[in-house]
Amino acid sequence: MAHLPTCLDDFEKHAWKVLPPAHFGYYYSGADAETTLARNKAAYDRLLIRPKILVDVSRVTTETTILGQKISTPICVAPTAFQGMAHEDGEKATARACAFAKTVYCMATYSNTSIEDAYKAAQAASKDGDPMHWFQLYVETDRDGTKKLVQRAEKAGYKALVITVDRPRLGRRLADLRNAFKLPRHLTLANFIDPNFIDPNALNRTGAGAYAGGAIDASLSWSDIAWFKSITRLPILIKGVFRSDDARLAVEHGVDGIIVSNHGGRQLDGCPATVS
Amino acid sequence: MAHLPTCLDDFEKHAWKVLPPAHFGYYYSGADAETTLARNKAAYDRLLIRPKILVDVSRVTTETTILGQKISTPICVAPTAFQGMAHEDGEKATARACAFAKTVYCMATYSNTSIEDAYKAAQAASKDGDPMHWFQLYVETDRDGTKKLVQRAEKAGYKALVITVDRPRLGRRLADLRNAFKLPRHLTLANFIDPNFIDPNALNRTGAGAYAGGAIDASLSWSDIAWFKSITRLPILIKGVFRSDDARLAVEHGVDGIIVSNHGGRQLDGCPATVS
Amino acid sequence: MAHLPTCLDDFEKHAWKVLPPAHFGYYYSGADAETTLARNKAAYDRLLIRPKILVDVSRVTTETTILGQKISTPICVAPTAFQGMAHEDGEKATARACAFAKTVYCMATYSNTSIEDAYKAAQAASKDGDPMHWFQLYVETDRDGTKKLVQRAEKAGYKALVITVDRPRLGRRLADLRNAFKLPRHLTLANFIDPNFIDPNALNRTGAGAYAGGAIDASLSWSDIAWFKSITRLPILIKGVFRSDDARLAVEHGVDGIIVSNHGGRQLDGCPATVS
Amino acid sequence: MAHLPTCLDDFEKHAWKVLPPAHFGYYYSGADAETTLARNKAAYDRLLIRPKILVDVSRVTTETTILGQKISTPICVAPTAFQGMAHEDGEKATARACAFAKTVYCMATYSNTSIEDAYKAAQAASKDGDPMHWFQLYVETDRDGTKKLVQRAEKAGYKALVITVDRPRLGRRLADLRNAFKLPRHLTLANFIDPNFIDPNALNRTGAGAYAGGAIDASLSWSDIAWFKSITRLPILIKGVFRSDDARLAVEHGVDGIIVSNHGGRQLDGCPATVS
Repeated sequence: MAHLPTCLDDFEKHAWKVLPPAHFGYYYSGADAETTLARNKAAYDRLLIRPKILVDVSRVTTETTILGQKISTPICVAPTAFQGMAHEDGEKATARACAFAKTVYCMATYSNTSIEDAYKAAQAASKDGDPMHWFQLYVETDRDGTKKLVQRAEKAGYKALVITVDRPRLGRRLADLRNAFKLPRHLTLANFIDPNFIDPNALNRTGAGAYAGGAIDASLSWSDIAWFKSITRLPILIKGVFRSDDARLAVEHGVDGIIVSNHGGRQLDGCPATVS
Repeated sequence: MAHLPTCLDDFEKHAWKVLPPAHFGYYYSGADAETTLARNKAAYDRLLIRPKILVDVSRVTTETTILGQKISTPICVAPTAFQGMAHEDGEKATARACAFAKTVYCMATYSNTSIEDAYKAAQAASKDGDPMHWFQLYVETDRDGTKKLVQRAEKAGYKALVITVDRPRLGRRLADLRNAFKLPRHLTLANFIDPNFIDPNALNRTGAGAYAGGAIDASLSWSDIAWFKSITRLPILIKGVFRSDDARLAVEHGVDGIIVSNHGGRQLDGCPATVS
Repeated sequence: MAHLPTCLDDFEKHAWKVLPPAHFGYYYSGADAETTLARNKAAYDRLLIRPKILVDVSRVTTETTILGQKISTPICVAPTAFQGMAHEDGEKATARACAFAKTVYCMATYSNTSIEDAYKAAQAASKDGDPMHWFQLYVETDRDGTKKLVQRAEKAGYKALVITVDRPRLGRRLADLRNAFKLPRHLTLANFIDPNFIDPNALNRTGAGAYAGGAIDASLSWSDIAWFKSITRLPILIKGVFRSDDARLAVEHGVDGIIVSNHGGRQLDGCPATVS
Repeated sequence: MAHLPTCLDDFEKHAWKVLPPAHFGYYYSGADAETTLARNKAAYDRLLIRPKILVDVSRVTTETTILGQKISTPICVAPTAFQGMAHEDGEKATARACAFAKTVYCMATYSNTSIEDAYKAAQAASKDGDPMHWFQLYVETDRDGTKKLVQRAEKAGYKALVITVDRPRLGRRLADLRNAFKLPRHLTLANFIDPNFIDPNALNRTGAGAYAGGAIDASLSWSDIAWFKSITRLPILIKGVFRSDDARLAVEHGVDGIIVSNHGGRQLDGCPATVS
């Protein structure tokens, strides 16, 4: 790089230079014609800030709380899969950074680091050894395997369970189709091959099979929330909400929080922008 | 191609590479300044989808019915002329594909395959030998010839008659003017030279003459609907409606269905987008 | 040209190729940042046409009347100066074409052909020897010279007087400033050097001086309309109106017609588009 | 330059050619993603002018008054720092030009010319030796130094004090970060090293330190207006207002004028355009 990156666009340009095209494409692209991806960006540019003047701002802070936990900034890190393609430390690096910055890192089901390893890395980087990280869950047809994942996350120390609800089918990302994307050989779906939790079915799905999303449970519905509450004491959030009627249903079903999201424009192209 | 086509844009790019410019121009271009063509595309990008979450979608189908017939998807194939320029199988290939996919193919008057041959090809490709295809009709000043076309379509097995009503004059497509477009010598207006239905006037019009639209009847009006009902038992649809008052008139005149369309932006530039 | 021009854009591209940059710039450019020029074009693209279908259009005509005269099309030709830079026939060619097509040509004060010569050329090209052409007038501080121009136009046969009212100062056209535009030596302001109407003051203004607009009367106001009515029996139109209150004032002052125009975006940049 | 500059864009292009990239970047860029900078420009293009016609404009003037002083045009020159990077005369040249044109120049705190030198230069260029210039003030935590600056400006002859209120923190301008911008060695923060007003703390801040804005008082608030009124008889304006509630507060606190501004899009990206 000719100069240090100063903004997200700089990092993106750098990634474009140093990553293999198929990996950059996986991180970068949205579903189909990427109209939702474009809407997500454009919607931010339309937001207006109208600050008040002549207010004493010599002692201000961005500290806030989320689910009752104090965080240093209202910006948290959303779950993203396969971080091992960007750096050999993968999810551990992100988990450490968030722990150090005292904000929430949401660990993904499809990570190249195991639930336990990512949390331990975060503990080592945090000042109090108690990172406020969450675990993102893809619910599979194999409910027993799903239950094990949830209980591993709770045992490892995660503070909340984030259930993704906008992926009954995998979004059709043209870049991945064009690049015939598959996980590089040296990387694994670490949560499914942890030696302590061998799941032979899961092993078969490692790699392109898992990516194809065949194991995701398309029958997931509101009535399943009760089951999740029966298998974990963690607060439950659902991720992928953007209708007000669904937000009301979430309250009615005892969900502890919702994450408004269109999956970064990667799932259903044609959705409105998340920030709108 | 460096990779398999994944979306319509990919097919368009491929066509641009492999087709002669004049043929690509014929398929690609809209009328005049192509503002309507651009509007058609932009209007799709503005559509918003707001799906509900946590609904069991493990057993869903895109099956629906149209004119009482069951089709596998709500997407049908609109009539387009001169498909022989894209592939030697021409309209037969499209007819077969639609029959195989169990959806409607609307066969065009100005096809390079005859009404009968296209239907037979579709029958061979369908599971039940009964493709639910329709026939698109340009009404000519020679009403007797027009009547013969309609009755041939009915006899061949087509399930509906689609009368194009937005072409009293041919749209002025600049690409065709610039390319001095004419049908390649090896292709014919097959419906006008079928050996069983020789029409000497029609033969004279084969090629550029027919393209110029000189034979289209500009006096076509609502009162003609009754005549069409007297010459065929097929349900009658009109194609090229986009005003609500015209939709009401269609009902009053006993039309069985309307197709909202601005002719893909190829007829009157300045029209609103079809989907709006 | 690789192909015949099929639309205005094609002619513009052709002009760009064959004209000296300073001449193309004079014809092409708008005032200042050309926001009004861009608005004029964009406003046309936003217009929607919603035609009715199934109406007998076998006998239709674009014929209409303007100021009581029958014309073959509602499209007339606006006054543009210095047509001699585009072709050696200059205004005569345009006058002939409009006479032949039976529509109005509005002859400009700052033409390279005299009032009389342009009208005679039009007469020769028209079928009835009576072209329905109008004369566009820039009102100068020398009211006596202005009176002579008006009376010459009336005597020559012009059917209406079009007074430009949106040019108290000349628009600031950056292309002309950059090109240090001046009329080529072989061309003249023909209306000011006609041998029968020698005006020594006018002669001094021929060329760059006249272009600079120093002689235009910036004090022109509504009260002057009465004076024009006293010196000519021609109907009087004013060109450059785009406020409804000014349109009402025009009626009150006995003007026979108004031409809504922002001078093609060449005068005051920042005006709304003419068609809006 | 191939031709003389005819508009602001021409000057900008020229500057891009002749200035070192880091200096051009300092003048050119806005904060962060420059959405506010882009909005500022786009908002001007949306403004519509709808002039009345046929009004006598032979004797018109752009003269107006501001704070009771007569100026030749409603366009004044806003404060901009570090003008020495553009020309060796720096702020003196701008001060002279404004004095000659009889309009307001607002001299910046962070200038490369001292308060006194700029005013003397302006006096020499004005016809009456009394330029109506203003002084822009950044309020620092060192209130004693700030008081000295205000009193120097009043003594030098400035006609108003303009307090910047939208910079509790310096805007994050990516171009400056990428260029590692710092003031060239031969230039100084002239107001802080004037031999008559040596301020040892200020001296330490000369250069990059001052640019980093560490000395700006982030606790500045409405209650400080009273203090400014106690140390100067100059009228007080505040610059950086764009909320109507803040404008009302300004009146209540006895401010003599407000300058609506988003700092040219250089401070808080995301603000609305100044002209909206």
